[in-house]
Formats: sequence, structure tokens, C-alpha cells
Amino acid sequence: MPTLKYIRWLSCFLSLTASSCADLTPRLSVEPPLKNVILIIGDGMGPQQIGLLLSYARQAPNSVIKNRRTALDRVLNNGQLGISLSYPDNALVVDSAASASQIATGKFAGSEMLGLDKDGNPQTNIIEHAKRLGKATGLVSDTRITHATPAAFAAHQTHRSQENDIADDLLAAEPDVMFSGGFNNWIPQHANDKHSALHAQLSQLIKHSFPVTSERKDNKNLLTVAQQKNYTLAFNSTQMQQARGKTLGLFADSSMANGIIEAHNKNTAQHTEPTLTEMTQKALEILDFNPKGFFLMVEAGQIDWACHHNDTGLLLHEMLRFNDMLNTVLDWAAKRNDTLIIVTADHETGGFGFSYSNANPPKGRHLSGSAFAGGTLFQPKFNFGDPMILDKLYAQQRSYHDIFAEFTALPKNQQTAKTLVKKVNHDTSFAITETDATNILKTKIKPNYHSDQSKIAKNTPIMPVNAAFFIGDMDNRENLLAQAVATKQSAVWATGSHTSTPVYVFTQGPKHITAQFKKILHHTELGQLALDALQCSHANAVCNKPPPPANVVE
Amino acid sequence: MPTLKYIRWLSCFLSLTASSCADLTPRLSVEPPLKNVILIIGDGMGPQQIGLLLSYARQAPNSVIKNRRTALDRVLNNGQLGISLSYPDNALVVDSAASASQIATGKFAGSEMLGLDKDGNPQTNIIEHAKRLGKATGLVSDTRITHATPAAFAAHQTHRSQENDIADDLLAAEPDVMFSGGFNNWIPQHANDKHSALHAQLSQLIKHSFPVTSERKDNKNLLTVAQQKNYTLAFNSTQMQQARGKTLGLFADSSMANGIIEAHNKNTAQHTEPTLTEMTQKALEILDFNPKGFFLMVEAGQIDWACHHNDTGLLLHEMLRFNDMLNTVLDWAAKRNDTLIIVTADHETGGFGFSYSNANPPKGRHLSGSAFAGGTLFQPKFNFGDPMILDKLYAQQRSYHDIFAEFTALPKNQQTAKTLVKKVNHDTSFAITETDATNILKTKIKPNYHSDQSKIAKNTPIMPVNAAFFIGDMDNRENLLAQAVATKQSAVWATGSHTSTPVYVFTQGPKHITAQFKKILHHTELGQLALDALQCSHANAVCNKPPPPANVVE
Repeated sequence: MPTLKYIRWLSCFLSLTASSCADLTPRLSVEPPLKNVILIIGDGMGPQQIGLLLSYARQAPNSVIKNRRTALDRVLNNGQLGISLSYPDNALVVDSAASASQIATGKFAGSEMLGLDKDGNPQTNIIEHAKRLGKATGLVSDTRITHATPAAFAAHQTHRSQENDIADDLLAAEPDVMFSGGFNNWIPQHANDKHSALHAQLSQLIKHSFPVTSERKDNKNLLTVAQQKNYTLAFNSTQMQQARGKTLGLFADSSMANGIIEAHNKNTAQHTEPTLTEMTQKALEILDFNPKGFFLMVEAGQIDWACHHNDTGLLLHEMLRFNDMLNTVLDWAAKRNDTLIIVTADHETGGFGFSYSNANPPKGRHLSGSAFAGGTLFQPKFNFGDPMILDKLYAQQRSYHDIFAEFTALPKNQQTAKTLVKKVNHDTSFAITETDATNILKTKIKPNYHSDQSKIAKNTPIMPVNAAFFIGDMDNRENLLAQAVATKQSAVWATGSHTSTPVYVFTQGPKHITAQFKKILHHTELGQLALDALQCSHANAVCNKPPPPANVVE
Repeated sequence: MPTLKYIRWLSCFLSLTASSCADLTPRLSVEPPLKNVILIIGDGMGPQQIGLLLSYARQAPNSVIKNRRTALDRVLNNGQLGISLSYPDNALVVDSAASASQIATGKFAGSEMLGLDKDGNPQTNIIEHAKRLGKATGLVSDTRITHATPAAFAAHQTHRSQENDIADDLLAAEPDVMFSGGFNNWIPQHANDKHSALHAQLSQLIKHSFPVTSERKDNKNLLTVAQQKNYTLAFNSTQMQQARGKTLGLFADSSMANGIIEAHNKNTAQHTEPTLTEMTQKALEILDFNPKGFFLMVEAGQIDWACHHNDTGLLLHEMLRFNDMLNTVLDWAAKRNDTLIIVTADHETGGFGFSYSNANPPKGRHLSGSAFAGGTLFQPKFNFGDPMILDKLYAQQRSYHDIFAEFTALPKNQQTAKTLVKKVNHDTSFAITETDATNILKTKIKPNYHSDQSKIAKNTPIMPVNAAFFIGDMDNRENLLAQAVATKQSAVWATGSHTSTPVYVFTQGPKHITAQFKKILHHTELGQLALDALQCSHANAVCNKPPPPANVVE
């Protein structure tokens, strides 16, 4: 109806205000152009792990979380929530490599692959796309930079275990920022000779921040290659803070510190490793210099490790580390509407939950309410878990893994149940008995052990149930410790590996983009949506197209 | 600026169209008035259970779900997703009674209480509120009407176990529709006398649809009271379909059929019990007659029971039953914008997940992709679970509970491991061995058993780990069966009780209302928001007020 439209245009003109004209112009053009995409992955961070953070924030008598509101509460103030399934090609459960590959490429991958599709063909990843668009790119992880999740955003390898080749790929992909651990995949094999000039030179270069060892099987020096590519190198917090422009930060020989150690060290002289929050802050500072914007992936990667070990206290600290990092990202993004923030996970690990039991059910007590006036006692049949447990978990001083590492480092004759009891009861709030310790330390000969496998440990801890799901070999003692304290913690774990539980997708940013993530997605769709968003240098129809049909049966 | 406003008003007047005047009137007035609230609770339906439904829908080679899209996918097309924590007063994990009470009243409750606050004072529930507003009300559950979840919406009792008192309360609250099982809490104790006239009369009344037994400790006949209150009585599907107006439908002596039996029976002559979908459809038909609208609570209650028993195949069928029911509600609501639909859960049960293991890892195979061109084999280290498992779970013919009920009904000398193997391997797709069966059937004397407890079973199955979380006593054999098949199913369970995992909140309806549920809520806030929404007979400021501050530490 052109006539009516003309009259409306006229009235709009007469009204002298822009706002009443809004319905005459295409709606989408008022949305701001998207500049940056920040993808945050909590490795192993299913609804269960987020549940622990939320329970702690809301219920811990002495919660350290201000106002008892997490960074995730903040995201949902303006953002959106969706769900994503992350299964790989032809399987029910995913590993971190295939999962992150599916986000990075938008294509289904085979288990344990990196940057390939299900048939094994390399696929363009989001970092490669971003670079073509002239954007800056960055990878941050609190694990090591060659580990599955960061690797999937740059490498194309048949198996995640090929970390030396992954380091080569990372350097070839050339993101502007790489901050993590994993130094020992970047230096020549002969650096292992402690008397060599190279060893001394590298120790000096990294200011003795951590030991110099190499995991390479060749004598490539990727640090030299990085310098040729104009990377500034950083090996500790001070060097990172001083860096300008393209930076490769390798802050640990292998894995970075866990969440408990990070929390203990961050305000002390031991603080040579930057925290996840500090790495993220610095990455944002560097990347934001690019006028065309950036893509940044940040991984809170040790959530998964805490969960593989069923270490509830450590998990809480990992979730707090994640929360700090996300708060920093939200602070940075406050008042900006040119940045899409996606917070998700690759999968859930461990099948964690607080759970109720019939151990120590509460004693009956009088209540003041009128329904109890006749003298009936308030007496639930079960023990539903004391919120004080949350404070006790926070008080844990050492990870289960570190407790057993120290224990194993003792002379053989000191590796007794008594010593283990002492260590556990010193470092955690949930005491074990000598009987518990004896059960934890019992081993048996591996079912498929052959005497010619000289390099493989002969013995393995005895898992009383579902043994095939506890894939950590000697580390399974940590899972047994978790079982020993389960009743006291009111906490249970289903597995030592991952589960299929769908993960959350929290998004914040321009509303026409976040609206697309408010669905039940698969990670391949999530990846494609992130890519599409990145390609919107201006808001237009392309940025609002529906996601491609899901590849439902792969 | 009155002048500017006048000019804008004038231009609006000149435009001759209503739509361009929208910005001169309060925005909310264009939202439709809310008439109905439908609350759907999946009991025990955490993200893990929804995950099973989604995995099945997307990945099962022979999925029965049309287009592989669930009813939950449909809700998110137009709706919103939020998260809710459901912990009760002073505990980490909630039971169904306290959880549903918190939704129904918007107040924190003590564990196992019904319709009381944490001090034991009765609180007005949403059904009472709805009735004051002149709305119709209804309760539908596939468990029994006096069970915790439906009870919390009408009763005020110190403990959920008081099912006879709950029946009294239900009748006093007088919802227009009550459809479920639980007949035996409504009839006089002396109906148990099989030779009595009453017994014959009641058998005739219910058309022999199920056995007549009473659980009451008095001789109240609540059916007579119901008739005095003008309830139509219905005891089978046919009677339900014929009912008009206020109806009490009690379709089973105690619990209704489980999801496997419902699926088997629904197109056969055994079909005397209505399905959850049929009850819901009929409830909507009856309630929709009220011009002032209605409140309806529908519970898919046996999801929880399947999960207490760690019965994965049954769980799948319970989730399919939920999905059918929700599709029916969405069909009913299609094209309406006067109805708020809330889909949530009271808690998660069992800590379910598919999980990967080191049992039977895949053999290496060639892939066509270029990354594998050198002859490298594709060979993941672990067994990530075959999607075929989903079809096998669907093929389960009987619940674990029914398998053991039949087993226990055999003469003692036939209750052997061999018989159990035969039963399990006949009714399920995951075979057990005689060794498995022997372990399942082993018992020990209960730790706290005293010889004077003549009514309490002396023996209990032996749980190899986390025994305190398996609260089912002899039913724990079902959990042991689950452990025996875990590796074959690639499925793990963490507990025999509930977990603290936050639950989803899916909402569909007027956007200004659903937007309020897009948060991290607590079930008390969720309940208050549902109440607020119900009180909006017309959309106005009251309907859009922010939720009250969360009672974060209770």
C-alpha cells in the first residue's frame, strides 16, 4: 500500500523524532555491527559443574563470591541461554579434541581428531576464517597450548596426542596471541642435556621460571621460528605484562598450575605464572588493537582434570577460577555492543552431583510452625547434605593428584596407609581411615598385562564398580579417594571419564545474534553460528540466516 | 516535553494507522492478557535425562521421534530457557515434596514437607491463589494423586508419607480436575474385606479396572465426599473420556503403569488406564471451559522412579511419555498467546550419563580423508559408545522393577541366578552372566538390624561402592543390575537418590512474561513468578515487576 506508506512517511517526517520512524526502516539495520567474538570453553563444565559453582555461590555459609551472584548470572541479565549436544561422528560421548574441532570448524569430526572432518579431511577453522577477514586471533588456556582444546582451533592432526606436530601447526596458523603452558613441545630435544649451552641459554631466557625439558623427538627450535615470525616471547607474568603486539606466552614446562595452587600463589612471590584471568585480560588488551576486531578462545581447561579425578574440592577452585575469568571478560565487554561472548563446554566430565544418603539422617527437632504444634517432630528420613560442606570443600589445600604425587615420591617403605591417611587428613576437610587408605592403595595385576610390556606398569588400583570407566590407571587411586569420602561430602561421581550430558550455551552480545543461540544446538551448529557471526562485519541479512539443518545422524 | 509529545500525537493521528502510535501508549498494554498457566514437572528430569531424550531423538538409528525434533525443541522456537536451583531450607539436595512445595508456594520449605514454609507454617499455594481469582485448577500425574509432587500443590502436611491425610487435603482444596492413580487412599479401610458389600460395590463402581484395596486407617469414604462436592468420578479411560465438568479420576489402586507398559498397552484392549497424554488432553478440555482461565500442573512422575532404579531403558520410555505429553500441550497451545507454559523438574535423579570406557576400544580402520593418506589408521583409544545402544534401550520389554517383582514372586527354590539371567536376557538387550546374577542376588544382614524389628527385612543387597546413596533396600538389586550392564550400555549412574544438578526452565507464552524466567532462578522465585503471572488477568505493570530478591542462604 504505497499511499498509506507515504502518509506514514509524511507523519514520521512531521513528528521530528527518529524513534517514531523506526517501523519504516528495516529493523535489522539498527543493530550494531559485530566486531569481536570471544568463545569461552569450560572443559568438562556440564550443568553439574556449574551447579557446584551456583550451590557454592548461593549456599556456602562463607561464600567468597560477592553478592552470591556468579558471572553466569550476569550473562543472563542481557544474554541468552541455549543447550548444545556435542557428540562426535558415530558415537554417544565426545572427547575434547573432537568436540572443540566441531566448534572450530562447524563440521562433524571423528573421536580424538583435530581440525578434520569425520572422513579425515582438514577443515578450515574459525581462526583461519578470522585471519582472512583481517581480524586478530588469540588462544588462551590454563592447560598447555598444544592440549586438545586450544589445538583444535589451529591444528589439523589425526590424533590429539601428536603434541609436537600440533606446536608446528599452531605456529603455522599464527594466532596473534597464544598464552598457556606446554613449553616442552617447543624446544629441541637436545635441550634435555643439562650440560649443554642450549639448556643454559633456555633457562636464562625463561628466567628460571620453570624447569627446561623437551618432549620433542627432533631438534626443531620453535621459539626461534616464533621470533622470526615477529612473536614477542613471554615465559612469566612480568614478561607477559610487558609484551606488546603478537605474543607467544608459554608459562609452564607442561601443564599450568591447578586452581588451588593458582589461588594460593596469586598474591605471593611464587607468582611467576600468570593466572587465567591475567592471561585473558592481556589477550584482550593485545587483540583489541586490531581495528577490524578479533576472535579469542579462552579455555578453563582444568575443570575437566579435576573431574577426571573426581576431586570435588579442586573442582570448586577450578570453577572459581573460571568465574573470575568470565567476570573479567564481562567487565571488559561492559557498555560494548560489538562483541559476541559465547560461554559453553565441550562435554561434561565425571557425572558429579551432591546427593542425599541414609548415612547420619538428622535427629528429630521441634519447629515453631503451626503444622508442628501437636508435638510432631521435624525429622526427614534422609541426610540431604549440610551446606557447610561447601566451605569445607573450599578449604581443601591440595589437589588429590598432588597428594598422590607427593605420596609416590616418598621412599617405598614410607608409602603406607598410615602416611596416606596423614596426608589426606592434613590437606582436606574430609578425613579417611586407615581401612580406607588400605583399600585405595590395593592393586592387582592388569587383566591384559603381558610380561614383555616392560614400559607399562604391571599393577593397577582395584575399582570396585564400573572399572572400565576409570581410565586413569594409577591415577584411579584419586577416584577411590573420592569414593572413600563420598558419604561425608554428600557428593557422588558416576565415572572417571566424560558423559553425554548436554552443555549450556550462554551468549551475550547483539540481540539479533544471541537469539540464534537460544535453541537446542549441536556443537557443529554452534560453531557455524559463531563463524557466521564473525563474518558479519556489518549487520545484514547474512548475519540473520537460520542455522543449517543439523547433521542429525552421523 | 509536552510540546514534542503533542506534535508526535498529531503526526500519529495524521498517519491514520494504529501501529505507528504504539510508541505513545505504554508498551506493555499491547501484550495480550494472560489467562492460563500450565506447569509441567518432569520428576527427576535433570539435564542428564533430557540429554538421553535428545541423544535418542538425534542419534538412534531407528528413532521413533518424528523429524528427530523433540517437544523441547519446539518450546525453544518461540520460548525461553532458564536454569533453576531447587535446594530446600538448610540442605544441598531436595526431595520432591519440598521442591514442589517451593514452586507451589514461592517459599522455602523443609525437606519432605508439603505446603509448609521452613518453620512449618502452612503457606498459600498456587491452586488456592488460582481459585481466589476464579480460575479453574487441575492436577495430573502418572504416579498417584497423593504422591509428593501433586500433593504439594494442594496439601499442607508435615510429611509426604501421610498420603491418607493428603487425600483429605486434596478434596478440601477441590481442584476441578484430579487425574492419577492412588485409589487406595480414598476408600474406607473395611473395603479390604473381600466378602463385604462395600468391596463388591467398589469393584463394580470401578468396572474391575484394578484391584480394590485400601491403605486408609479409618473408614472415611472420600469417593462419597467427592460426589457430594459434585465431582464426576472416573476409574478408567472410557469413564474419563465421558466425563464433563469437575472430575476426580483415579485410574489405579496405587501407581499408574510405567512408560514401557503404557507404550505396550496404549493401542490394545488392556488399555483401561488413560495415558499421561490422554489425561492431559482431557484436563485441558475440561479446564478450558472456565472463561477466567486455569492453572494446571502435569507431572511426568515416573522419570524419577526409573532413575532411582538406574533403569536406563525404562528412563528412555518415561522421557518419550513426557515428550508425547508435552507435544500435546504445545499442539493445544498453538496459535494461543494467552497461556504461559512452564516446563521444569524438581531435581535430577540418579546422575545418569552415557560415558566412554576402555572396554572394547574400536579396531583401527582406514579413512578416505587426506590427513590419513599416509596409511595412518583411525583408532581412538577409547570406546565412545555406539549409537545402536539407543535402539537397544528402546527395545527393553520390561522395567527392572517388574523383572525383580516377577522373580521374587517365584517359589523360593526357583529364585536362582540362572532364572534371573534368563529373565533379564529375555526382557532386555544387554545380557548378564550367571556371575553377574550371583552378585546381584547376594545379600548381607543390615548393619543396624535388631532382632526385634520383625517387620523389617533382615537382609539387604551388597552395594560395592557408595552404599549410603542406594536407599532402595531390596530394590537396590535393580541398581546392581544397572552396574552389571553399565559397560555394555556405555551408561553410568552416580547414585540411587537425587542430585543437586540445576534443572532447566523452558517457558513459552507472552514474551514479557517468559523473559522473566530467562535467569538463574531458585524454585521459590520460579514459583513466585508463576504466581505473579497467574495474577495478571490483564497485562499491566504488576505483571512485569522484577522477581523478589532470592533468599540466598536459607
